[in-house]
Amino acid sequence: MKIRYSQLTITPGNPAKNYETCRQAALKAKKEGVNLLILPEMAIPGYLIGDKFEENDFIEDCEFFARELSKEATEDFSLIFGCVMFYETLSGNPRTGTDGRKVKLNTAWIATQNKTFYKVKTLLPNYREFEEPRHFKDNLWVKNSLPEWKMFTPYNIGGVSFGVLICEDGWDDDYDLKPFERTSEEGAQVLINLSYSPFTLGKNSSRNRRFSAHAKNLKKPVLYVNGLGLQNNGKTVFCFDGSSAAWNSKGELIAHSKMYEEEDVDFEFKNGELFSVSPLQYKETPEIEDIHKTLIYGIRNYMKQSGLSRVVIGASGGVDSTLAAALYAEAIGKENLLLVNMPTKFNSQTTIGIAQKLAANLGCWYTSVPVSESAALTKRQIDGLKPTNAKGENIEINLSSFNMENVQARDRGSRILAAIASAWGAVFTNNGNKTETTVGYATLYGDVAGFLAALGDLWKHTVYDLCRYINREKEIVPNEVLTLKPSAELSDNQAVDKGLGDPLIYPYHDRLLEALQQWWNRAPLHDILQHYLDGDLAAYLNHGEITELTEELIKTNFPDAKSFISDLERWYKLFKGMGVAKRIQAPPIIAVTRRAYGFDYREAAIQPYFSRKYLLLKEKVLSNN
Amino acid sequence: MKIRYSQLTITPGNPAKNYETCRQAALKAKKEGVNLLILPEMAIPGYLIGDKFEENDFIEDCEFFARELSKEATEDFSLIFGCVMFYETLSGNPRTGTDGRKVKLNTAWIATQNKTFYKVKTLLPNYREFEEPRHFKDNLWVKNSLPEWKMFTPYNIGGVSFGVLICEDGWDDDYDLKPFERTSEEGAQVLINLSYSPFTLGKNSSRNRRFSAHAKNLKKPVLYVNGLGLQNNGKTVFCFDGSSAAWNSKGELIAHSKMYEEEDVDFEFKNGELFSVSPLQYKETPEIEDIHKTLIYGIRNYMKQSGLSRVVIGASGGVDSTLAAALYAEAIGKENLLLVNMPTKFNSQTTIGIAQKLAANLGCWYTSVPVSESAALTKRQIDGLKPTNAKGENIEINLSSFNMENVQARDRGSRILAAIASAWGAVFTNNGNKTETTVGYATLYGDVAGFLAALGDLWKHTVYDLCRYINREKEIVPNEVLTLKPSAELSDNQAVDKGLGDPLIYPYHDRLLEALQQWWNRAPLHDILQHYLDGDLAAYLNHGEITELTEELIKTNFPDAKSFISDLERWYKLFKGMGVAKRIQAPPIIAVTRRAYGFDYREAAIQPYFSRKYLLLKEKVLSNN
Repeated sequence: MKIRYSQLTITPGNPAKNYETCRQAALKAKKEGVNLLILPEMAIPGYLIGDKFEENDFIEDCEFFARELSKEATEDFSLIFGCVMFYETLSGNPRTGTDGRKVKLNTAWIATQNKTFYKVKTLLPNYREFEEPRHFKDNLWVKNSLPEWKMFTPYNIGGVSFGVLICEDGWDDDYDLKPFERTSEEGAQVLINLSYSPFTLGKNSSRNRRFSAHAKNLKKPVLYVNGLGLQNNGKTVFCFDGSSAAWNSKGELIAHSKMYEEEDVDFEFKNGELFSVSPLQYKETPEIEDIHKTLIYGIRNYMKQSGLSRVVIGASGGVDSTLAAALYAEAIGKENLLLVNMPTKFNSQTTIGIAQKLAANLGCWYTSVPVSESAALTKRQIDGLKPTNAKGENIEINLSSFNMENVQARDRGSRILAAIASAWGAVFTNNGNKTETTVGYATLYGDVAGFLAALGDLWKHTVYDLCRYINREKEIVPNEVLTLKPSAELSDNQAVDKGLGDPLIYPYHDRLLEALQQWWNRAPLHDILQHYLDGDLAAYLNHGEITELTEELIKTNFPDAKSFISDLERWYKLFKGMGVAKRIQAPPIIAVTRRAYGFDYREAAIQPYFSRKYLLLKEKVLSNN
Repeated sequence: MKIRYSQLTITPGNPAKNYETCRQAALKAKKEGVNLLILPEMAIPGYLIGDKFEENDFIEDCEFFARELSKEATEDFSLIFGCVMFYETLSGNPRTGTDGRKVKLNTAWIATQNKTFYKVKTLLPNYREFEEPRHFKDNLWVKNSLPEWKMFTPYNIGGVSFGVLICEDGWDDDYDLKPFERTSEEGAQVLINLSYSPFTLGKNSSRNRRFSAHAKNLKKPVLYVNGLGLQNNGKTVFCFDGSSAAWNSKGELIAHSKMYEEEDVDFEFKNGELFSVSPLQYKETPEIEDIHKTLIYGIRNYMKQSGLSRVVIGASGGVDSTLAAALYAEAIGKENLLLVNMPTKFNSQTTIGIAQKLAANLGCWYTSVPVSESAALTKRQIDGLKPTNAKGENIEINLSSFNMENVQARDRGSRILAAIASAWGAVFTNNGNKTETTVGYATLYGDVAGFLAALGDLWKHTVYDLCRYINREKEIVPNEVLTLKPSAELSDNQAVDKGLGDPLIYPYHDRLLEALQQWWNRAPLHDILQHYLDGDLAAYLNHGEITELTEELIKTNFPDAKSFISDLERWYKLFKGMGVAKRIQAPPIIAVTRRAYGFDYREAAIQPYFSRKYLLLKEKVLSNN
């Protein structure tokens, strides 16, 4: 018996198109003598489509196309794929759920020659970007509603018993029900997991461990089939990397598809064991390579999905816009990329030179549009303006030098880049990294603007790592940018040639903010302060990694608790205050880590809160000094 | 026995402050001889705080302050209030949930002289802006984990048996478990519902019907206690209106607090019946009055919560910015409001005159900053620009008249208003209504910009209704604006004095878009087309209301199916396409209806999808023509 999985691309919210993609895979498989074809979870509707799942005509279309696809089954060809369906279709009972809408299920359709069976997802994730219980009921709910329902029964296809599970069903650590075990107990000989799971840094290796363990513990081969595609929740863009794989009954990896590449992989099942037809070709890749692939895939497909081809980037000569330019050039082609340098009197020849060199290295379009004349006009029009009221009284409006910094930033984003982009039939990019995004170190309608934030889930140190990775064979990113002091260059206080620049001490603040925002168990402020006092904060924040952060660096920058606390609270307040306000209006971010901003990390604009433990410790420390 | 509820203001994410508010209410109640004080749901943590609920030190603080508050109980004074707590605190079992974090519960604390009891919320809403199962487990889960747990047992306080329920527990229509009935069966004499439920158009009257029915059916008095406050989910701002109320055992309303006003209301329980100490003073208010109160409360408190006092409004003389100005003047005071008219050559004397009259009517600050010089500078700098590449080739950038419309819009928002606002220590507003927001009829970083979209959940017809309401006693909104043709005035094609203006036919498109976006069961496109063909589309879209939309209006504007379909698809594509992209970067909206944009209506940026039924009907119709 020949078994195949197809790692194919799913388009969110387009059942007609997905049906066609799946049908082509089925036709090809039949032609090539496959007996069982396995496709990903939610292959017909797509997955991240928001409240589109509330629209009954959409669900009806999904069911229609799923039925059509099921008709491809023949006497010696079966297929398994994921789809949404009404509970009514499965049970005949038009029940509504606790939202008052018809109950829907995340299901696998097992289409054999004369019948289609349904398997319901047992474990529905409800954390990070996932919120399946918002739209779906689970397998146990079906069992409680329909006593004759078999939750874990495997299916006999060509004399082999296949257990069918869906995505989270394989990640059962935090759940009482163990779908893999239960399905195995019911006699499954092969365990199939249909998934549609996005890339997250480190997830591939943890997945390999997890599914290998299932196979080994249950002594059954496991087939894990994941789809490709780009899907989003508005604020957060997720890249579905595939990385489908299989393990034999000893838990040994026997197949592993590449990230972001469509692929058919064939297997034989013989004597209770699963064999891959082709030899295993897989080696784990370094994280930075995975991040690079993810961003290229994300940029390319976000553009494609939005019907866009050209991009304008404000190239300051700083590291972030430089990296953005290198990524876009690779993703969409140098002929579709225009770099615009927008100097004011504060910009150094150093950074202007880097921007020019970058354009030359990439071979893309380049131009320069100075900001000074517009800034002067704004100053002339607004500084000293005297609005009046009906009584003839007036107030006076005066632009400070800080106000003028933001005027320049907005002039670049909302006037120059926006105008050039619209005239060229293009869009312009947001180049903010996660560190800046966290503390809101950017100007709304200025550098916060842009159609997509490709670097918005990369801490500053990863921005540098990625530049070095891009330069692995030859200099693409001008080397000068890697040693330059990061700076906004918006005033004399930010002159890079004098070694002046951003107020962030990246080796420290990167790790601090990561601990506050991204750790699964986020670091409480009192722990951070306590570790500072204990002199082991660098070890704590490095979290087992070796980074540029040392105890010395912390001590040098914050010689006493007072300076440490003042810095800590400054950034914490920005993170929880102005940072949130800016993120609400910021463009979508391509997710890379666990906890990208947006739908993966839900925030309310509320006042920063300092816990009792922290305030007590702070009081004690400061009164001792 | 004297029972009191306090309709008080809760601050999201600030347990220390909320504890103090609640403690003051307790001290006052004790002083005034109250025996039982009832406070709202989640009175200590607040409710809409996003993933802050994942932070254990925050939950620990909530429990700490809840314990402190419980200590206010004495021999003849008890209190009931809402708080979050760990399941471990209730059970001693440090269980984690399916997100791998410590299990948390939404609970009522019943503090009597020497003991505190906990009641767990049974029904957890997971639709619209609600996502309680993301953070909390429910009463049934506790029962399954802790067999001795009593789910619905009432509490004896001063010889009376009180059943304690939480918010959604009273809205049990779509749930299998019926907490009100079960608690009544367990012998409760009075049913108390602690709530923290935001204003939604029409919710107050449906709530009155619902709780009156509980009281009447169970023959028990019902006390419904709701809090005040402003809470948000980032993109969507919710106003918690209070409207606490009570019904006697016949289901008759005996108390009803005003919207958005702090109030203590006292009751006596005698001979199995609940009596209000003060006579009932309540009459249902017109919807437009509720909307007005909500927006004033929303604006005032969003400003306060964000530490803001001054506002700049771009006053075009159109109806939206005019309404915004009138609302802000009322909410924050005319001395804190500056109107800026920003004319180009396309702006009529009519609209400039309206803006001036508006400022005079309001008594606020006014100034004018023309856009033409900056637009000319942008044209000079960018039109004809010739970026080059390393090979010496070049492209040419040309600004079309459409590009120049957007240049002007962005100049107003991101250059002028942003600069004036920052110089004056103010923010500037977004004045978009829901109709424009739906189809993205606004320019990103132009009129999409702003700190808050106060009108973002009002359809255009409600904007007019609200202007007329504001003018109920005297002319505040210049009357001319009410008869003016709506227009962006960005080109000669939009000249208001020639009767030209927006491409939207508001009496029709308002209702069409409402049907597509806001109806609980959203109107499918094929139904809309079918009703057009049947000649009863106006009746369908009016949904039982009398509006300006008539069958004649539809027939006049769309004499044949082709023109109807072309218009329908044009706006549907904008709604699902460019509209989404703009909403992702738009400011927070004050929620008024069911399904405000943002967290209440979750969207992915995906291609618009036309269902099979619609495409088949369209094909049939067009081939017949």
